[in-house]
Amino acid sequence: MSESTVVVFGDDPPVRLDRLAGRARVLVCDEASLPELLPAADVLLVWNFTSEAVRAAWPGDGPRPRWVHAASAGVDRLMCPELIASDAILTNARGVFEQPIAEYVAGLVAAKAKDFFGSWELQRQRRWRHRETVRLAGTRAVVVGAGPIGRAIGRTLEALGIAVDLVGRTAREGVRGGDELNGLLPEADWVICAAPLTDGTRGMFGREAFARMKSTALFVNVGRGPLVVQDDLVAALVARRIGGAALDVFEHEPLAADDPLWDVPGLFVSPHMSGDTVGWRDRLAEQFQDNYDRWEAGEPLLNVVDKRLGYVPVD
Amino acid sequence: MSESTVVVFGDDPPVRLDRLAGRARVLVCDEASLPELLPAADVLLVWNFTSEAVRAAWPGDGPRPRWVHAASAGVDRLMCPELIASDAILTNARGVFEQPIAEYVAGLVAAKAKDFFGSWELQRQRRWRHRETVRLAGTRAVVVGAGPIGRAIGRTLEALGIAVDLVGRTAREGVRGGDELNGLLPEADWVICAAPLTDGTRGMFGREAFARMKSTALFVNVGRGPLVVQDDLVAALVARRIGGAALDVFEHEPLAADDPLWDVPGLFVSPHMSGDTVGWRDRLAEQFQDNYDRWEAGEPLLNVVDKRLGYVPVD
Repeated sequence: MSESTVVVFGDDPPVRLDRLAGRARVLVCDEASLPELLPAADVLLVWNFTSEAVRAAWPGDGPRPRWVHAASAGVDRLMCPELIASDAILTNARGVFEQPIAEYVAGLVAAKAKDFFGSWELQRQRRWRHRETVRLAGTRAVVVGAGPIGRAIGRTLEALGIAVDLVGRTAREGVRGGDELNGLLPEADWVICAAPLTDGTRGMFGREAFARMKSTALFVNVGRGPLVVQDDLVAALVARRIGGAALDVFEHEPLAADDPLWDVPGLFVSPHMSGDTVGWRDRLAEQFQDNYDRWEAGEPLLNVVDKRLGYVPVD
Repeated sequence: MSESTVVVFGDDPPVRLDRLAGRARVLVCDEASLPELLPAADVLLVWNFTSEAVRAAWPGDGPRPRWVHAASAGVDRLMCPELIASDAILTNARGVFEQPIAEYVAGLVAAKAKDFFGSWELQRQRRWRHRETVRLAGTRAVVVGAGPIGRAIGRTLEALGIAVDLVGRTAREGVRGGDELNGLLPEADWVICAAPLTDGTRGMFGREAFARMKSTALFVNVGRGPLVVQDDLVAALVARRIGGAALDVFEHEPLAADDPLWDVPGLFVSPHMSGDTVGWRDRLAEQFQDNYDRWEAGEPLLNVVDKRLGYVPVD
């Protein structure tokens, strides 16, 4: 195979692809130069995972990358009919984010159960006020999203003695079907959204879902912002119809300084970082380069996304 | 056995001992009336676990309770030479607090690793600032205190992928001896104090211990306040010699509104509630009444404290 051209979209922070030196022509581009370079790419590495520029620049006809690798778990920002219809292979960063996100969610659940934020607030006020907290063991969680991230979350919550129902698109062993979700929500103490964003999941957490939840339930979104109807969530929190929420992802990221979400009562906001542990960028670069070895050798790539589903299928 | 007199010290909130109705004479007292009632007691239930009045009122000679039950895990506030020397049996609330405290500690560790308090503070400031967080799996914890609470903490941290060294007074299977602690501290990301307060453990976390810890280490105390030299901890935090601390117990409880501890940088303060999950008072009352059944039947009591050690020994 002749030397491939690898176009890297995004360089903040710069990606280090030392192992490709002498093996590939590596070109870095930004949103402005992407449309010009994309047709020249054999391989596109999407390093900037927050932009939708790839979708906009994807060539309908003519030359285009044969392989697109997303340095993220979700690929929703890349998806367009032309990419789906093309013969380009799409791969993702499965394996990098699972355990970090699972730990993050477990921490949020514990922080809510033990009312750490309440204690933090009382500490500011220099007030000693003993409260009774919630015992995690014996509580119930619903984890929506039965891919590797949802499964890791489920395993970690179970390790804390929490009973977990995992909900996927279709029922299979160990996974409840999406049609069972409505029946599960009223029993759940913790409702965790870790689903991929697809046409089928967009807005799945809206007024009706929040109305079914316990008044004490914590809702956590570590999937994608548009899975949630933000206004409906805000209304549920303001009316105290649910016990609280934690969002790590949003419809518009970064959240603007004047966004009303910052001070909704009972809402914990974090800046899309649940999976990003020290060294994550290096792990993403390694993972891409490992797959590049396979590409160069003509071997099947790992983590191939089913473009019609919008994620890597898991049994 | 003739009807016993059960003196309950403390009634805030009131203890419900329904199962003793018609079987025992139950008298409730406070700090003022304790000295008068104590000699009449066959059984003393110490429901107020924050007061040191029992120690002060314990009868040196003459009539005294044959059984003292502490509705707490720690019995340090009861201990006096006369009680130790007497033939009174001392029991405690082993079994009620283990899992809740373990969950609380796991939550604190996750909250630190994922910088929840940092995000909380940034949310107040309406600032979106992505950071890299710490992956729990693969980190190391030292848990000081190899009793049921320390063991539960160890199991729970291990379930999160953390490598745990459990440190007790003496080395035994699965437990490192206290003389090994100095060698373990420099390697620990999380240093958890869950030791009983005895003459041997008082002040064990002082300047020297903090100096041995990693500059990123989190120190957590869920044991008793005097296990820690508070001034030394504050100095370590102010100088950023350690990464942070969380105290649920203090030398003087409740913490006064003007106590300087409330706003030490990097210190999380909570009001001695790590083990107190919803229904804990009921569980404590049930546990006492279960033991009372044994007492009445002349059977050996459960959770007997070795008064010379100051805790219930565990293999």
